[in-house]
Amino acid sequence: MKTKLTIVKVGGGVTEKEEELQGLLENFSNIQGAKILIHGGGRTATKIAEKLGIKTEMIQGRRITSREMLEVAVMVYGGLVNKNIVAKLQALKVNALGLCGADMNVIEAVKRPVKEIDYGWVGDVTKVNIEKLIPLVQNAVVPVFCALTHTTQGHLLNTNADTIASELAGGFSTHFDVTLLYAFEKKGVLRDVDDNDSLIEELPETLFEEYLEKHIIHEGMIPKLANGFQALKKGVKEAIICQAEAIAEQNLIGTRLKITLK
Amino acid sequence: MKTKLTIVKVGGGVTEKEEELQGLLENFSNIQGAKILIHGGGRTATKIAEKLGIKTEMIQGRRITSREMLEVAVMVYGGLVNKNIVAKLQALKVNALGLCGADMNVIEAVKRPVKEIDYGWVGDVTKVNIEKLIPLVQNAVVPVFCALTHTTQGHLLNTNADTIASELAGGFSTHFDVTLLYAFEKKGVLRDVDDNDSLIEELPETLFEEYLEKHIIHEGMIPKLANGFQALKKGVKEAIICQAEAIAEQNLIGTRLKITLK
Repeated sequence: MKTKLTIVKVGGGVTEKEEELQGLLENFSNIQGAKILIHGGGRTATKIAEKLGIKTEMIQGRRITSREMLEVAVMVYGGLVNKNIVAKLQALKVNALGLCGADMNVIEAVKRPVKEIDYGWVGDVTKVNIEKLIPLVQNAVVPVFCALTHTTQGHLLNTNADTIASELAGGFSTHFDVTLLYAFEKKGVLRDVDDNDSLIEELPETLFEEYLEKHIIHEGMIPKLANGFQALKKGVKEAIICQAEAIAEQNLIGTRLKITLK
Repeated sequence: MKTKLTIVKVGGGVTEKEEELQGLLENFSNIQGAKILIHGGGRTATKIAEKLGIKTEMIQGRRITSREMLEVAVMVYGGLVNKNIVAKLQALKVNALGLCGADMNVIEAVKRPVKEIDYGWVGDVTKVNIEKLIPLVQNAVVPVFCALTHTTQGHLLNTNADTIASELAGGFSTHFDVTLLYAFEKKGVLRDVDDNDSLIEELPETLFEEYLEKHIIHEGMIPKLANGFQALKKGVKEAIICQAEAIAEQNLIGTRLKITLK
């Protein structure tokens, strides 16, 4: 039997408020066994960019990453947010190790090809190399990933944190029984976005596709869900969308994603 | 016989100019065997702080680290400078791993006690924990350290990079034959700071103390020298002040520090 590994991706809505971050990290520290944390930091990046006089440009909810904005992303995600989380986890006796995709060449990517939109310095993941991380994870080191990858040619790239979580989960699933948690403010995928009691406890991919066609899934949920299903196809055991408060619970309440095994 | 480990501390004068950084990293990539890089980033921090409207306050060449300035240091040292160096080293086929002292709890420190001067969020190193790094370093991973430590209570601290280099060198010397290089713009310690041919090839600690008393050592050199002698006392095999261009040379030209073994 493989060892259990819990991979938690937490949204900026949680990590960017001091108190909620502390609560999240305490819950995370209570997760038993091997674990990995992945975080964003978009709102902080937007704030710092504004102070530096750099304009934030978003198209369909995605950040256009100019050279100046990439510098801000590297400072905020790789520095400010990441290292503060690491220090706070150390205080909770979690032996955290802050990483971006360039560190030990863990996540390779290519600059997104320009089609209708030029996203700038944004990366599409091409390969994950987790070999060097395995003994660390087995030895109680807890990687904390920010949403940066690299080209292997010397360039850092801004990359969707949901995708990074999914890619890492897929990579680790060859060595571990991986549970992938997308933690955010809501209980999970809701039938009615304003009603926290309308939780969909199980979401088969076929239903997701139906919802997608009918445009009845909240736009912000789509990357999490698409990446969650992707992870299951790569061998991840469980992919769950849940509330940040729930991550350490034994019988975790949230939306479990299901694929039809062929 | 222990394995050789080369620890290079490089000054901001080298890392903060694009071309000189690239040259330094190419030289660093040519160093054979296990190696570690330590970098500063003060000038970039000062620039970013200025853009953010944060005033840089220096007393006797040392940065006063307010809460806002610590945030800048974490962004610039831990993010911008560190992750860019890591990405550039990966492009040179060096399997770099960017770290601050909080990562894997490698460098513990205390906030400097307030005496005549309140330095703010500045750390004095209390302990280095290199156990988790040893197998990585033995396995061709190259740690790249920025000048941040942590309290183990959740706070990051701005810490002198020369001191970090010395402390790491001391820690690793129990497992490796450590050569510590302080690389900067000049050939080494010069008799006449304006004459690059006035290199002092060997500097015994007794002579250093004499020079100190007579105030004939350039102020900026004192931390490197004091930390270099400190490292030798902790078992480091060689401590050399040299030019960034020289670090990969077989018969390295620079100022070799010497202590009298008791």
